[in-house]
Amino acid sequence: PEGLKEKVLNTYRKTKEIGQEDPRRVIHALKVGLTLTLVSLFYYYQPLFDNFGLSAMWAVMTVGVVFEYSVGATLGKGLNRALATLVAGALGVGTHYLAELSGQTIEPILLSFFVFSQAAIVTFMRFFPKIKERYDYGLLIFILTFALISVSGFREDEVIEMAHKRLSTIFIGGSACVVISIFVCPVWAGEELHSLISLNLEDLANFLQAFEELYFRTSKEGDCKDDRTALLEGYKTVLNSKSTEDSLANFARWEPGHGRFKFRHPWDKYLKVGTLTRQCAYRMEALNAQLNSNLQASPEIKRIIQEACSAMSLESAKALRQLGVAMSTMKKPYFANIHISNSKSASESLNSLLKSSLWKETDLLSVLPAATVASLLSDIVACTEEIADAV
Amino acid sequence: PEGLKEKVLNTYRKTKEIGQEDPRRVIHALKVGLTLTLVSLFYYYQPLFDNFGLSAMWAVMTVGVVFEYSVGATLGKGLNRALATLVAGALGVGTHYLAELSGQTIEPILLSFFVFSQAAIVTFMRFFPKIKERYDYGLLIFILTFALISVSGFREDEVIEMAHKRLSTIFIGGSACVVISIFVCPVWAGEELHSLISLNLEDLANFLQAFEELYFRTSKEGDCKDDRTALLEGYKTVLNSKSTEDSLANFARWEPGHGRFKFRHPWDKYLKVGTLTRQCAYRMEALNAQLNSNLQASPEIKRIIQEACSAMSLESAKALRQLGVAMSTMKKPYFANIHISNSKSASESLNSLLKSSLWKETDLLSVLPAATVASLLSDIVACTEEIADAV
Repeated sequence: PEGLKEKVLNTYRKTKEIGQEDPRRVIHALKVGLTLTLVSLFYYYQPLFDNFGLSAMWAVMTVGVVFEYSVGATLGKGLNRALATLVAGALGVGTHYLAELSGQTIEPILLSFFVFSQAAIVTFMRFFPKIKERYDYGLLIFILTFALISVSGFREDEVIEMAHKRLSTIFIGGSACVVISIFVCPVWAGEELHSLISLNLEDLANFLQAFEELYFRTSKEGDCKDDRTALLEGYKTVLNSKSTEDSLANFARWEPGHGRFKFRHPWDKYLKVGTLTRQCAYRMEALNAQLNSNLQASPEIKRIIQEACSAMSLESAKALRQLGVAMSTMKKPYFANIHISNSKSASESLNSLLKSSLWKETDLLSVLPAATVASLLSDIVACTEEIADAV
Repeated sequence: PEGLKEKVLNTYRKTKEIGQEDPRRVIHALKVGLTLTLVSLFYYYQPLFDNFGLSAMWAVMTVGVVFEYSVGATLGKGLNRALATLVAGALGVGTHYLAELSGQTIEPILLSFFVFSQAAIVTFMRFFPKIKERYDYGLLIFILTFALISVSGFREDEVIEMAHKRLSTIFIGGSACVVISIFVCPVWAGEELHSLISLNLEDLANFLQAFEELYFRTSKEGDCKDDRTALLEGYKTVLNSKSTEDSLANFARWEPGHGRFKFRHPWDKYLKVGTLTRQCAYRMEALNAQLNSNLQASPEIKRIIQEACSAMSLESAKALRQLGVAMSTMKKPYFANIHISNSKSASESLNSLLKSSLWKETDLLSVLPAATVASLLSDIVACTEEIADAV
């Protein structure tokens, strides 16, 4: 019983953690429950049930399958499902009548042939990357509905009524999902993407700051190192953010205008900024390796390049932070340009420092790590500038 | 009509291209068609239809939804669906009897309450990362089935029979999918992961080779440059391969033993190699930036470091290629170790070269790009060694 108690407590803690991390998750769960309960009213309320009968279950099914976390995903799935049902239903009814004309013996053969070929063709279509991206779910529903309607027709005579009921119940279920997901505490995929991108920029800025402190001021204060390392790790989530960004942008395209975003907001631009941010993060990965490498520049050498390098990383960090703020408030980043030109001039002074004759006495191997750091930092400065252009 | 003809031709070309890229896609499409047709026999064959009646549509639905490209994904979805239907069906029937005891007026209220709370709780559970990874689909089906069975019970008296029919048709549809996907030209997710990882290693090796040629032998032969650039770009797909690898490993865990892979093959190790490969690719991204940067080392300086750097990149490339081959044949990479120690000794001779006094006359700025290249290359050598340890 001790072990069990432990497990229950652990689960409780985990649950609380996930709920607190993003309280909208709890709300989402309640929304799904609410919609499902609303739709199941079809079964309890006599006049509604008289209309639809057992087809009401399609409404329940639709709610369960279509309701997703963000508005965009819900809308996309709902529209896909409704459209696919409409088209496939119509084609299915047509096929049914066509097959019926051919007589009792050939009918099943013809039907099987149609079902086989539509399933094969549509399944193959799902491999087209562009179609897969937006209409994957719709094609799946197309296969299902076509098979259901045309094959059921063999047994039931009221095919049209069946198709009609399926369509209208799916429509009801789908619109219930869409309405509730839009009007009750909506979670917009566009807004998520928007804040994700600016948070990523913020993460990179944190990294640069933490890197500057750790690289040039290691020995001074060792106590707050843990804190720094946390900031240092932030960029790692940026490295693998591509798939999240892509799917959010894909959902966001389905969303109607809301708040600060119009319909047809240029979501592609966000992806562009995201790609540049990742490129910057790749450089940081290389920088981070320098921080942990066992080949370190001597303190004297570090001291020589410290001023310029510190300025480069801190000013780039400020610029990135400004760009992040500008992204999230959707204003022009006035201050960012100042910081960028500061970091560029620091990079130039570093260059002239390197050209100077200070170095004749030292051997190249001991300068190498510092030189790498310097060159990666100037790469980052260049990246930052590109991001600024794209914002 | 000219424009239309153009479009049709384009679509035809695209289709051919996608089919030729991976002919198994065509086979997959045919397999789905075949399974769907087989399952729809339920409707045509009288004795079968007598048994299941209209519930046969669940079998059709299951085939459409469960059949995925790889065996692992199909098995995972099928098992999830079957288990979830079983558990939720049992609970739904229980709830139905419980609610029935309470009398006609309270019954709908109780049922609604149950449906609401299970939907909310299970939806929230879907946010747990570990559960989401493997049982997401099962939880979805749980919500649906529970709602369907318990709510339909309000109208139909034969709840048990309904639940039983739903379960057995889903079972039939699911096993049809699993059998066909395993025994007709199977596509194993494990095998895909296996070859993806070794292809990625190959891509990195190609990059290093192409980099060596482009960086040190630019001016000699400009004609075959296009060919090189294609090899140079290969590493870029590696950068974002994480999500593909994760999902393949996830599917592979569902698969039974096949060919060279046992059940419980250590798929996690593949992910580890994948992560190291990506880390190596990040360094290459930085190297690639050096190749295109406008601050280039002068030809004389390049010539000095050429021997050591060429050896480093070519030997690392050979080592990576050997590791890729070793991965795909599952043998110990004997030759890789030789190449790795070669590249390490090249890296050491580069170090002593840098320590030497050859450099006094040149200013540091012009050495910087070359130094960065050298240091990144030694990072890559280190990464390669780590990969070799992990393989």
